[in-house]
Amino acid sequence: MLINVLKFGGTSVANLKRIENVVKIVEKRIKDNSSKIILVVSAMSGVTNELIKEFKKIKNEISDPEYDVIVSTGEQSSSALISSLLNKKKIESRSLLGWQIPILTDGNHSKARIIKINSNVLKNHLERYRVLVIAGFQGISKENRITTLGRGGSDTTAVAISYALGLKTCEIYTDVEGIFTSDPRIVKDANKIDSITYDEILELASLGSKVLHPRSVELAMKYGIRIHVRSSFDKKLGTMVVKEENKIEKEVVTGITSSENEAKITLKGIPDKPGIAAKIFSTLASNNINVDMIVQNITDDGRFASLTFTVPVEDERKSLKELRSSDIKFKKIHSNSSICKISIVGVGMKSNVGVAQKMFETLAKKNINIQVISTSEIKISVLIDLPKKKIALKALHSAYGLGK
Amino acid sequence: MLINVLKFGGTSVANLKRIENVVKIVEKRIKDNSSKIILVVSAMSGVTNELIKEFKKIKNEISDPEYDVIVSTGEQSSSALISSLLNKKKIESRSLLGWQIPILTDGNHSKARIIKINSNVLKNHLERYRVLVIAGFQGISKENRITTLGRGGSDTTAVAISYALGLKTCEIYTDVEGIFTSDPRIVKDANKIDSITYDEILELASLGSKVLHPRSVELAMKYGIRIHVRSSFDKKLGTMVVKEENKIEKEVVTGITSSENEAKITLKGIPDKPGIAAKIFSTLASNNINVDMIVQNITDDGRFASLTFTVPVEDERKSLKELRSSDIKFKKIHSNSSICKISIVGVGMKSNVGVAQKMFETLAKKNINIQVISTSEIKISVLIDLPKKKIALKALHSAYGLGK
Repeated sequence: MLINVLKFGGTSVANLKRIENVVKIVEKRIKDNSSKIILVVSAMSGVTNELIKEFKKIKNEISDPEYDVIVSTGEQSSSALISSLLNKKKIESRSLLGWQIPILTDGNHSKARIIKINSNVLKNHLERYRVLVIAGFQGISKENRITTLGRGGSDTTAVAISYALGLKTCEIYTDVEGIFTSDPRIVKDANKIDSITYDEILELASLGSKVLHPRSVELAMKYGIRIHVRSSFDKKLGTMVVKEENKIEKEVVTGITSSENEAKITLKGIPDKPGIAAKIFSTLASNNINVDMIVQNITDDGRFASLTFTVPVEDERKSLKELRSSDIKFKKIHSNSSICKISIVGVGMKSNVGVAQKMFETLAKKNINIQVISTSEIKISVLIDLPKKKIALKALHSAYGLGK
Repeated sequence: MLINVLKFGGTSVANLKRIENVVKIVEKRIKDNSSKIILVVSAMSGVTNELIKEFKKIKNEISDPEYDVIVSTGEQSSSALISSLLNKKKIESRSLLGWQIPILTDGNHSKARIIKINSNVLKNHLERYRVLVIAGFQGISKENRITTLGRGGSDTTAVAISYALGLKTCEIYTDVEGIFTSDPRIVKDANKIDSITYDEILELASLGSKVLHPRSVELAMKYGIRIHVRSSFDKKLGTMVVKEENKIEKEVVTGITSSENEAKITLKGIPDKPGIAAKIFSTLASNNINVDMIVQNITDDGRFASLTFTVPVEDERKSLKELRSSDIKFKKIHSNSSICKISIVGVGMKSNVGVAQKMFETLAKKNINIQVISTSEIKISVLIDLPKKKIALKALHSAYGLGK
């Protein structure tokens, strides 16, 4: 039995007109071949907002089993609505909720992880129906209570269903054409990337995570499921997310991304003793603050060090407060959130020299000062002044030949 | 284990303020004794309206399994919201949906009937929680699909749960104080009835069915469950719906009710042959038209008859059309919807003579013409001109001594 798994996000099912478009895509598929189709759908955007508002008046804590009962109604309704429209078009279909399959998860409400999916129930239903419409984002715990998977949940459901059925590909329909070499709103000649590796898309963060949640990418990578990210409003192929060995042409740099979501904190005059850095970062970690880039310098006389690192911008004030009230010794602390992280990403970097050098030269030519550098096997990130963001992105995009 | 089943309808849980009131009622109960409490709740009024509108754009047929998936989200959300508020007030509670108990029903979607309720699951949960909040109106079919019970569904859930747990009473909280001797908006001195029999409440139709659906009354009657209809906004006792033998004082007339929901159809000049009436009513029945009151007269010469009957006002035109297009012979047909049915109801009627006579005399004194009469063991109904409705109700209410 040929089975295709197609996931449609909230904007793709936002209203009846959009849902009709989904049905058209299904009709086209059915005409083309004899495959059975599994749709995994998100909630119609906005449908549960009022209820969630009421809930939050009661509790701010959403890791409450009752919150999941409420929020899961969104996908419950959209899956039923889509299935009834398919039936009206004479396509045999039914909705399936998390508990009806079941999609067994752990008991971490609002951020549950999938443990097991009963693929036999799916296969039995596929014998009888041409299309199954599965409510994404939801499952049940061992205690038989509704759980939800948290952010990116429907993508994760789609990948997990594909794996459970032994499929090689999962299609994620969204409101963009695919993953781009850079943000097309800033870099006008940004191109759609035909194929990208799991690692690259994870490193591309903001470029990728808007269309595909890292968690679903990690799951797909683990089980070798190809993800085809494509547009609900355009028939063209989108971006294929694949294993590195399946990527035919390994560009040196696949994409360039930026993030404004960081604040830079600098501590000066820290006694240069063993264990000081550990103490600083454990203080932050115990307050749930994620540190990203780190640079340490030692003064000429070797007695004091300075430390610069970045934290999420929403944790800037909290970080300063926690460090000031701790017993860590330093002479000065200051922070700056008018900064921006620019990253170049590409698996080809591993086997190419001079990639970093070209980045630094390009930025230098534009008089852009690099404040912090961090690198991984397939990524180089630099911290620069926020006002230089656009210039930097455009210059790098052109320097690595990513324009048309 | 002492268990109380309390049902709260849509207006009693309409918003967070109303839900807080429900929680107060529960808190008071818990303070008073050591009972465990089962709440059966309806949807917050209006919550699923938008979704139902969207569904009806797709299909007008609501006996669709997918319709039940959508409409059941209303009770799903209200039960979760109420449970989370109870938990916030440190009352151990959880929501339970139809499939989690399960409440097994037949597969007649949108009007399913309950087959079996797993009371063990309820009892096990009652060991652990002080309060269970059950989503009313919903169940699952043998095929594991969500079903809904149709109108009056939550009342029916509450009565069925009470029966499954071997309880003797079920409390229905609503927005009125109980069942009244007549409509208080028309008859100013109408009184709250302290106790009423199942038969009486069924016959009182419009007076009773606004607060309690006939179906739940039938179920309660079948299993001898007392129903206490009472106000969510008032601590006073309401009306107790009981078996006839438990009603201490059997008033001759318990209540007086009126209905404008009927149209009168008269056929004149029907050949007086056997089987004609049967043919007329089978024609109507095959078109799903319910006939209520019937009077047949034969002309003096015995050759022709005239037939008068009532149908629901929404079926008036359809009835005329079907009869005209049938091969039934008659000379004239006409209809009138400016009529009203007045009924007096009381179990005491059975052992009292002169009840009907007093009704006819009272109406005659007010110059009100009786067009059709029908009687049952505990009810006498008359058809009168609609403009006389208020005068008739007030006069009868006073004649039978129902005023304060």
